Amino acid sequence: WRARTQCEVLQYVILKWTFAFLVGLFTGLVGIIINVAVENIAGAKLMYTAKLIYSNQLVLAFSLVTGCNVVLVLCSALLCVYLGPAAAGSGIPEVKAYLNGVDAPEILSPKTLFVKVLGSIGSVAGGLYVGKEGPLVHIGACIASLLGQGGSRKHHLTFSWLRLFKNDRDRRDLVTCGAAAGVAAAFRAPVGGVLFALEEAASWWRSSLLWRTFFTTAVVAVVLRLGSNWCRVGHCGLFGKGGLIMFDVSKGSSTYGFPELFAVMILGLSGGILGSLFNALNTRICIFYAKNFNLKGPAAKIFLACFVAVVTSVCCFGLPWLAPCRPCPQLTLPYECPTYDRSGNFKSFHCPTGQYNDLAGLVFTTNDDAIRNLFSTGTQKEYHYTSIIIFFVASYIMALLTYGIAVPSGLFIPVILCGATYGRLIGMLSTTMYDLKGLDEGVYAVLGAAAFLGGSMRMTVSLCVILLELTNNLSMLPLIMLVLLASKTVGDSFNMAIYNLHLKIKGFPILEAHPEPFMHQLTARDAVKSPLVKFSPVERVGNVMHILRTTKHSAFPVIEEPLSPKATFAGLVLRSHLLILLKKKDFYFTRSSSTMSCRKISSGEFAKPGSGKGLTIEDIEVTPEEEDMYVILHPIINASPYTVLDTMSLAKAYTLFRQLGLRHICVMPRKPEGEPILGILTRHDFMHDHLLSIHPHLRSSLLKDRSFLRQASSDRHP
Amino acid sequence: WRARTQCEVLQYVILKWTFAFLVGLFTGLVGIIINVAVENIAGAKLMYTAKLIYSNQLVLAFSLVTGCNVVLVLCSALLCVYLGPAAAGSGIPEVKAYLNGVDAPEILSPKTLFVKVLGSIGSVAGGLYVGKEGPLVHIGACIASLLGQGGSRKHHLTFSWLRLFKNDRDRRDLVTCGAAAGVAAAFRAPVGGVLFALEEAASWWRSSLLWRTFFTTAVVAVVLRLGSNWCRVGHCGLFGKGGLIMFDVSKGSSTYGFPELFAVMILGLSGGILGSLFNALNTRICIFYAKNFNLKGPAAKIFLACFVAVVTSVCCFGLPWLAPCRPCPQLTLPYECPTYDRSGNFKSFHCPTGQYNDLAGLVFTTNDDAIRNLFSTGTQKEYHYTSIIIFFVASYIMALLTYGIAVPSGLFIPVILCGATYGRLIGMLSTTMYDLKGLDEGVYAVLGAAAFLGGSMRMTVSLCVILLELTNNLSMLPLIMLVLLASKTVGDSFNMAIYNLHLKIKGFPILEAHPEPFMHQLTARDAVKSPLVKFSPVERVGNVMHILRTTKHSAFPVIEEPLSPKATFAGLVLRSHLLILLKKKDFYFTRSSSTMSCRKISSGEFAKPGSGKGLTIEDIEVTPEEEDMYVILHPIINASPYTVLDTMSLAKAYTLFRQLGLRHICVMPRKPEGEPILGILTRHDFMHDHLLSIHPHLRSSLLKDRSFLRQASSDRHP
Repeated sequence: WRARTQCEVLQYVILKWTFAFLVGLFTGLVGIIINVAVENIAGAKLMYTAKLIYSNQLVLAFSLVTGCNVVLVLCSALLCVYLGPAAAGSGIPEVKAYLNGVDAPEILSPKTLFVKVLGSIGSVAGGLYVGKEGPLVHIGACIASLLGQGGSRKHHLTFSWLRLFKNDRDRRDLVTCGAAAGVAAAFRAPVGGVLFALEEAASWWRSSLLWRTFFTTAVVAVVLRLGSNWCRVGHCGLFGKGGLIMFDVSKGSSTYGFPELFAVMILGLSGGILGSLFNALNTRICIFYAKNFNLKGPAAKIFLACFVAVVTSVCCFGLPWLAPCRPCPQLTLPYECPTYDRSGNFKSFHCPTGQYNDLAGLVFTTNDDAIRNLFSTGTQKEYHYTSIIIFFVASYIMALLTYGIAVPSGLFIPVILCGATYGRLIGMLSTTMYDLKGLDEGVYAVLGAAAFLGGSMRMTVSLCVILLELTNNLSMLPLIMLVLLASKTVGDSFNMAIYNLHLKIKGFPILEAHPEPFMHQLTARDAVKSPLVKFSPVERVGNVMHILRTTKHSAFPVIEEPLSPKATFAGLVLRSHLLILLKKKDFYFTRSSSTMSCRKISSGEFAKPGSGKGLTIEDIEVTPEEEDMYVILHPIINASPYTVLDTMSLAKAYTLFRQLGLRHICVMPRKPEGEPILGILTRHDFMHDHLLSIHPHLRSSLLKDRSFLRQASSDRHP
Repeated sequence: WRARTQCEVLQYVILKWTFAFLVGLFTGLVGIIINVAVENIAGAKLMYTAKLIYSNQLVLAFSLVTGCNVVLVLCSALLCVYLGPAAAGSGIPEVKAYLNGVDAPEILSPKTLFVKVLGSIGSVAGGLYVGKEGPLVHIGACIASLLGQGGSRKHHLTFSWLRLFKNDRDRRDLVTCGAAAGVAAAFRAPVGGVLFALEEAASWWRSSLLWRTFFTTAVVAVVLRLGSNWCRVGHCGLFGKGGLIMFDVSKGSSTYGFPELFAVMILGLSGGILGSLFNALNTRICIFYAKNFNLKGPAAKIFLACFVAVVTSVCCFGLPWLAPCRPCPQLTLPYECPTYDRSGNFKSFHCPTGQYNDLAGLVFTTNDDAIRNLFSTGTQKEYHYTSIIIFFVASYIMALLTYGIAVPSGLFIPVILCGATYGRLIGMLSTTMYDLKGLDEGVYAVLGAAAFLGGSMRMTVSLCVILLELTNNLSMLPLIMLVLLASKTVGDSFNMAIYNLHLKIKGFPILEAHPEPFMHQLTARDAVKSPLVKFSPVERVGNVMHILRTTKHSAFPVIEEPLSPKATFAGLVLRSHLLILLKKKDFYFTRSSSTMSCRKISSGEFAKPGSGKGLTIEDIEVTPEEEDMYVILHPIINASPYTVLDTMSLAKAYTLFRQLGLRHICVMPRKPEGEPILGILTRHDFMHDHLLSIHPHLRSSLLKDRSFLRQASSDRHP
């Protein structure tokens, strides 16, 4: 692109910002659509059920809840299993993997986008213990990716003027913006979205990206604001104030001293333990699901999803009966007691007039409303110990069981829900048993949510800002920081963050930020595959075809031998470029054809294709006559790839590979004898398991390292 | 350090976190000390002057103000000129340069720290239009650097157990924490501090650093909270609620529609213009100062500082006489009118009872209080147009004149002051002339401050978060984002951010994030210096001494020639390591001494020295006999430096150099003939001016590029 004119540069810049704008716009709109749909479906379901309970038709009420939930979850699971399997789960691991450079097909395809939107409406409205937040991040990334590719070639939606974006980095930048927009749309947290993209999603970060991501999330914020203003007038059915989650606890702050800090510290530490326990158990459950259901075909997956939906419905309808009716407390506005409607803190459920069921306010409602109730301030002694404990156990178990089934399912909401319940419990203990009046129970609930999020997801600044933007109370900042510090530290000493665990389960070849310690004991030469497959600058077509068919390498070195006294490394050619060259059939009869004659290939043709597989060797048909002709590789040779000396420590080579986001490194000999190039290192050559399999002696030395110290030292620099 | 034991790793990890804690603790304490000192000195000065004015002793009052200011500024300037010249100015450019890899001596030395603390007390208390925010960033960085070096060797404060931190990256990480702590201490903005370090200060960023920086700023937040609680009881003299700046505008938000958004947009755009104009004028003034004062010796510098102090005092005392006395409005608490004390919105100054002077509330007060008055909500029509316009012009001019004199001077406060005044003006216009009641005048003032900051400093997310944390009003987020987007975009089309301009003026060899476009037209070979100075693995001492004396290179290639058919590149040796080796006088009589005998050098001896100059060649004395002996370089050879092929585009080599934070890249020949290494590229070889001086033909092609497009394309990837 060195040859681009100023006009093209200008076009590029304008396009870049237009795309950032469009990503924000579309993600915001999709966020509103999902919210409106969920609130209307779930709201209608709960309203009719509440009416049936009020008129004492309990069996009918139970059937209605269960029926609705199963149908909704079934639809979601059917879509997920048959149309877009990549849409299952939260989607954040997939986005992380893509931004780390893993080009798995379908991760960000239009199908996945479609399934993710409809599926998450189904699973959230179906009452499962899942959120729409993770899926929104994935949706934002999908939208960004589709825009960046200029639509989908498969679905005939391409635009030639989007040609400028046909490279990895531009797409990755756009997808980063998309992920940020997703968080911004999910939590109404524009700054939190930027920080999430920075801290959790992106593997490479540039300062200019911060600015563009910020623009995207600002667009999302404006879209959401306009959308919720429009809905407030009554255009969106049951979607009221609740819709876009926003838990206002701005009244809950007051002065606090050391006893409160002590309680908060305990909350943080125990939250870290429970959060990491969640990670450990959920990982095991997911592996169990994978072995016993996913391998047995689509029917088993769908059965599992429906089973979880039934169990959830039983919880939703059955648990409130465990709690006795309590008389309504004397409260000021805005609390009403009891409410017969779908929202409100004090649900009537089956109780007589003037009484309420505290558990119903938590389980017989949407997750967003349950969280809002837990976070509500000025509602001391609303919940009883047994109710809170029952709900905590139920939500913890259900969250564990649900994340892993074949529906789009976010993790934020269930973790926040468990954490808020736990926090409220601690808050009730400290305000009543130890008589600490400094902090409201609602504030403890927020801190509990922070503790669980920190213990499970291990984000720091981004979580902190998301929670602040959610709760609209800046004075809680030091407390949230304290809790996050405690819970993350405790969690890190047990296991990895849940998204990283899921990345491992899914088997994506992720490049961690730092090399593994054992890589210091290897040199670049130790990781090189042999034998080396190489080309000449002018190569027989049959040879090229044969090599492409028999190997799976994505790049090949080109070696020049003709006139110089020694063979010289000419550069690197990519498999994808070779395939395009072969497809063009620009072949010659002799080796000596001038290189001038073939310089008619425009760079656009070599642009990276979209998320599909692109050309494969099977797509190319070559006649036997053509096989004996020659193809000139000069125009596609990358004459200056990044190189390392063979004596360089593998850890150093890894750093180069990872920091620059490379796909190939050439290993050059330090001594000029022998081959001019020893080999090519790719992502797979740096994988932990691969290296250990070719150097088994490292395994023993590795066992001596304990996980804590390994982590500590991988935290350090190469 | 490959050989470190687990125990050492543990020690390292503990040390790392302890340092992060200590940096937060000390920075927080210094922040409190500076605040208490400034509030007491400036408060006493203003209080006595107000009393003198009240008793109508105007000449005495004027002499008191002027005398105090000149003495305070004089002390500050004397310290700055004679003891620590590096402490002049804001310090943020210096911290940026250090974190970019510029090892200028004295930037972070103990002397600089000392002068910065005392000097900024003097200059802020002396009434200058400067802030303590930038200096606090520098102070945080100095504290971190001193801790990281294990004290100062020059001042005999070293600790041997801090040996583990003797490398560039660990120190840079710690200094990043220090910079974040500085912002956190300055604005009571822990999250904003982290983001500032990320967006503005650091050139390299790692995810684990985010976490540690966050910890540091959390410590600062706790220290500040404890400190201000302690002060509230009355332990800190005049330091009251005002002290640590915190401008609460949480009551100023309300609904706003498109007319308000239009006004805000205009505010953002014009703020961008005025902000970039500020940058342009201030740069010219600084160059003027440098030519006409700084070159004429210390006396001229001190005279300039005192002159500015006198002009500031005249403004402070003289301007209020331009505004007529106005009757006090009927206001609710917490406003009192008029006040005779040092703070409060409605200053009596010389007015009769029941009247106030609106200009006195802005100029005859500390800058923090003036900002607080401008930001105050619910005080419509407090200021008159003429007063606001007079103050805007005065503060804009004074801020321009002040930043550049030889005292520690932060830029945040003057820019916020100008911006808030301008914003209040726009707010007054839109609320009274166009009758837009949606936003409070105080909110417009905050947005004006955002517009000026965005237009001058060009930060985005960090400024946004700092302003949110300062004003404690999350609902202003979309407005602040909008203003920042507008003002930064406008500003970027005129010139660079002010800190970057000052970096250029100071001549630090900064590596920008992206290569210049013209670098794509050069190859690595084009940038190589010739002739190449090289060593053999076993070298004559006289030779080494001669080369070290006659060149200034910081690294030399070692070439092996003995047995192999061709010369081989053995690796790189650093000048600093050579000096240490020579200092040890581990010399041999023959070339063939076994390399085994010299393996007794511990890695600790080769640790990077502190901020001082370290060993120089002048420190080493070698007798003529020793000159004929040999020194074995094997133990200090870095056998696997990062390399590039000579045909690689310079832009690609730059990316490698910049992203990995290297100090040297070896340029290797692609063809195996000739020398085994062509040269070494260092930071200076990548400098814009250097490259243009050796390739003058690029200058002409560069002129065709307009600055806008250059910036746009440098924004893109290599």
